[in-house]
Amino acid sequence: MEKKIIYLDHAAASPLLPEVRQAIEPYLGERFWNPSAVYDLGQSVREEVEAARREVAALLGAAPEEIIFTSCGAEANNLAVKGLALANEKKGRRVLVSAIEHHSVLNSARFLERLGFEMALLPVDRYGRVLPETLERMLTPDTVLVSVAQASNEIGTIQDLRPLVEIAHAQGALFHTDAVASVGQIPVEVKSLGVDALSLSGISLGAPKGVGALYVRKGVRIMPLIHGGIQERGFRAGTENVPGIIGLGVAARLARERLPERAARLRTLRDRLLKEIPARIPKTHLTGHPEKRLPGHASFCFEGLEGEALVYLLAAHGIYGNTGSACASKALKTSPVLKAIGLPEVVAQGSLVLTLGEENTEEDIARVLEVLPQVVARLRSMSPIWES
Amino acid sequence: MEKKIIYLDHAAASPLLPEVRQAIEPYLGERFWNPSAVYDLGQSVREEVEAARREVAALLGAAPEEIIFTSCGAEANNLAVKGLALANEKKGRRVLVSAIEHHSVLNSARFLERLGFEMALLPVDRYGRVLPETLERMLTPDTVLVSVAQASNEIGTIQDLRPLVEIAHAQGALFHTDAVASVGQIPVEVKSLGVDALSLSGISLGAPKGVGALYVRKGVRIMPLIHGGIQERGFRAGTENVPGIIGLGVAARLARERLPERAARLRTLRDRLLKEIPARIPKTHLTGHPEKRLPGHASFCFEGLEGEALVYLLAAHGIYGNTGSACASKALKTSPVLKAIGLPEVVAQGSLVLTLGEENTEEDIARVLEVLPQVVARLRSMSPIWES
Repeated sequence: MEKKIIYLDHAAASPLLPEVRQAIEPYLGERFWNPSAVYDLGQSVREEVEAARREVAALLGAAPEEIIFTSCGAEANNLAVKGLALANEKKGRRVLVSAIEHHSVLNSARFLERLGFEMALLPVDRYGRVLPETLERMLTPDTVLVSVAQASNEIGTIQDLRPLVEIAHAQGALFHTDAVASVGQIPVEVKSLGVDALSLSGISLGAPKGVGALYVRKGVRIMPLIHGGIQERGFRAGTENVPGIIGLGVAARLARERLPERAARLRTLRDRLLKEIPARIPKTHLTGHPEKRLPGHASFCFEGLEGEALVYLLAAHGIYGNTGSACASKALKTSPVLKAIGLPEVVAQGSLVLTLGEENTEEDIARVLEVLPQVVARLRSMSPIWES
Repeated sequence: MEKKIIYLDHAAASPLLPEVRQAIEPYLGERFWNPSAVYDLGQSVREEVEAARREVAALLGAAPEEIIFTSCGAEANNLAVKGLALANEKKGRRVLVSAIEHHSVLNSARFLERLGFEMALLPVDRYGRVLPETLERMLTPDTVLVSVAQASNEIGTIQDLRPLVEIAHAQGALFHTDAVASVGQIPVEVKSLGVDALSLSGISLGAPKGVGALYVRKGVRIMPLIHGGIQERGFRAGTENVPGIIGLGVAARLARERLPERAARLRTLRDRLLKEIPARIPKTHLTGHPEKRLPGHASFCFEGLEGEALVYLLAAHGIYGNTGSACASKALKTSPVLKAIGLPEVVAQGSLVLTLGEENTEEDIARVLEVLPQVVARLRSMSPIWES
């Protein structure tokens, strides 16, 4: 008997959309040509790469020439943080990043410290939001860059970016946002956000692994991360991952077409989890903001248990969630994000993150609501620190 | 009527091997899980990623833990040059790279200059070889890194690396080689070469675009280029391009199994081009070394014409070659590689590079030998600088 899989870890990896898979097939086959080649075959691939760029730009309300394709969201974040800081260091050498940024932003900023920059962490409130007054207080005239993610893949909270961008710009600082968790989940419009750079990943859009993109506002200076040839107008060397880029283009178009309906459906499913899980399981903490959060994102901490054990035991029941973020899961016992929003370590270690996708159903949610309370109870019954 | 295509630009892009394409299909489909996820599904993908790492290591005679997967050869070169220099800068801040390196090596070294390093170009002889005495002369005690490609994708010459590595090591300098053009074409054994780092790309192996790898000898310190999570043991953040990596693993195994037979076959085809083209076309210069060159690589300069026009006109006859390297083709009128080997500009601008692959046949070569002389003659007849 095959185990029915209820997959609720879409932030870590998502199935390719069927339309995406179909679109990339020729580029894994007969259309293998290099888009930098001058002859007709290469140029016909180049045209498709540029069509994909227009789709990604359209999803963000950007111009095609403002899009740089990268190999993943992490590369886009590295390119943004290092590239913006280094290209504009005459403005100053101070960089501000929020305390709940993805490791690719945090560790890029730490690398800058090694080059003589100063990095400071913007604290967040208990929902994971950077408050305008916090930024006002920490922003100095020599701050060259502020980087705050649009949404957290760990606690789901959506930032109100616009006021932060305005504060940064008033001091002449650039503003980058990691939108890997939000693009395709909520409407993301670079012009109304006002950001100077925005990272996204194919993974959360149903495109293949191995592709991402960075929006860089026209006129903003940036230094390449991967130096070499003139691909991506000199801002990202290396032969283009053509199948990945073609896939990202299709995924971007579908995200634009389907977003409102999709978000509404996921929100309904998620709201059942947000309401029912704390109702059915005592000593449960919802993490992140109860309303201002990603449509398909539900995250909790359960007192008296350990998140990784919870993930394993749920998986044994065919339910696949995550604890903390995918990259952090093996590196750290306690999530810095949960620490930053003020959860005590004993609570934070019992973290569960459920991220929903297209294929999830009401039945999936019902099954989670049936199994999760049993699994939590079982783990607590084995816990030396839990007193019932 | 469909035009028969004779594709001779394998250095720029190669068709996926059928076995590679088959192997990656599940990873574009049902096996989409993130290899960093702790649950069984993720871990089953992790095991396949590690199996691919063992295949790449086996192709090079390396240990699996000496392999870092990257998104392309250019990223591997950036990681090597910047990462080795920055992690070992206590040794000194001088970097030597050959004058015929790929742009991803050259421009990485130039980026290091911006960080206070000193970069110098190692001149080459008329075949494109760095002579040991040249390195002896230019190597100083504060040289931290020497980077010389194992083979040039533009002129095909294979370097004799071992003496260069010994000279570098005697002074305590690290040695990196860009082996993107050579891996899969000739036997490459990191231990007998003695190099500290070696870059390769999936493209020249019949793997998908979007994947490469860097070998880093155990015990050698390197700094990440893409900072973030703990993927690739902390040396390359970002969710792994799983289909790309799986494909690279299969391609590496097939390269190991098929290399001797494949190289012998390509060498026979190529030798016909090397012998017949200069015999049939006057004022033809073979570029690169006549014997010590990649098996499938034939490169020439024809006086009195312009390489890009030659590529276009050949393409109109269904023959697809390149002029200079793929990345440089749009950036520069005259190739720095051809300049470095001492060709006058008027000769260098008539460059043609033919790189053969698995599917090429004797008939393809016969057709090239028939068409190329006509095409060259036609272009020369239109040239204001050609005197017949």
